[in-house]
Amino acid sequence: MLKLFIGNKNYSSWSMRAGVLIRQAGIACEEVVVRFDSFAAGSNFRQTMAAISPTGKVPVLMDCGVGNGLVVWDTLAIAEYLAEKFPEKALWPRDWAARAQARGICAEMHSGFTGLRSHCPMNIEASLPETGQLVWRDQPAVRADVERIVGMWCDLLRTGSGPMLFGEFSIADAYFAPVVMRLKTYALPVPAEVSAYMARVCTLPGVQAWVEGALSEKDFLDFEEPYRLQR
Amino acid sequence: MLKLFIGNKNYSSWSMRAGVLIRQAGIACEEVVVRFDSFAAGSNFRQTMAAISPTGKVPVLMDCGVGNGLVVWDTLAIAEYLAEKFPEKALWPRDWAARAQARGICAEMHSGFTGLRSHCPMNIEASLPETGQLVWRDQPAVRADVERIVGMWCDLLRTGSGPMLFGEFSIADAYFAPVVMRLKTYALPVPAEVSAYMARVCTLPGVQAWVEGALSEKDFLDFEEPYRLQR
Repeated sequence: MLKLFIGNKNYSSWSMRAGVLIRQAGIACEEVVVRFDSFAAGSNFRQTMAAISPTGKVPVLMDCGVGNGLVVWDTLAIAEYLAEKFPEKALWPRDWAARAQARGICAEMHSGFTGLRSHCPMNIEASLPETGQLVWRDQPAVRADVERIVGMWCDLLRTGSGPMLFGEFSIADAYFAPVVMRLKTYALPVPAEVSAYMARVCTLPGVQAWVEGALSEKDFLDFEEPYRLQR
Repeated sequence: MLKLFIGNKNYSSWSMRAGVLIRQAGIACEEVVVRFDSFAAGSNFRQTMAAISPTGKVPVLMDCGVGNGLVVWDTLAIAEYLAEKFPEKALWPRDWAARAQARGICAEMHSGFTGLRSHCPMNIEASLPETGQLVWRDQPAVRADVERIVGMWCDLLRTGSGPMLFGEFSIADAYFAPVVMRLKTYALPVPAEVSAYMARVCTLPGVQAWVEGALSEKDFLDFEEPYRLQR
């Protein structure tokens, strides 16, 4: 049996990548939410996750059927693990060259886009278009990140068969689902074909289930809400 | 035919990961050095790499035998590509659980250890123990990163069969080879079993070839040498 340890669905973008992948692929897996807290030493989150994984972060996948429970941490390793465990689901594109490209953009996401990630933290429940306007005006790093994302998506959608980045749903779409959430929350300017892709991502059952979970949490954490003085 | 585009061997830690992997695995591949420069728009580095890869960064692997030349960018995607292309070389550990662990620590490296990476930039040719002492005293993020690395390596070396992190040489050792260089250059304090692993890494022919290349460059760039006022 598989268990996925995740943080708050409204805020935890790395959890969302793994959660959307698993749900959308129809993989049976129990979700265990470890609520975000202060992250101080000794906090419940720190203590719980430190007992599970060497990095103490979410997401973590536990495969209870391997040994005493195989712990797979870090989102990209989780994605590769699931792709190997369920080859029939083709979580990566089946085509050799497409698969290399998909891995390339996921590795890019894994280490980059720090402008967008720091200035536009994921907050699924929120609608912050005015904040988005200010961020867009004042943060060249955000504009550069969005420019790269728009270029990447448009190239893939034009050369591929759609409707997803590599034809059918793949790890790449799960990896960029939190980016879709950010672009929506902050209403950042994107061309029509990107908006259309974003809309398609939002109708994926795996994404819908995650968003519903996020909206039903109603667990608002001040430190994850840098742009709101009050609700 | 494979081509690997890399930056200066003395400074480019990401290039080193891919370069060491390819050389140590005995994969035939032409190395193309694109010398680091100011990285300003219009600089030779920027222009050259922008024509090759969507991110404009090194390393980039080009597989000239696929289509019009398949471009694989981002180090982790390059590693996965080579692991798939040369399954007989077992670039990832053959064991299922070990492979998941190896991918976990590489994904961790791919996105993390920013304290060590920013305060102790790779500089193979340099010996900077005094700088290392100051960094160690003043930068808790560096101490935390080294603590995690020491813990990770010791766990793997104690539970595994050695001499490398997962028994035989794997992508994981290539991924952490630049960390070995940093620990050496800045003489950061590590336990004896870590020093012994570092020494074994330094005797790998793939690492030796890279270090020799770095030492023979003699192409010193001020902006990569934050700790030296003069040579």
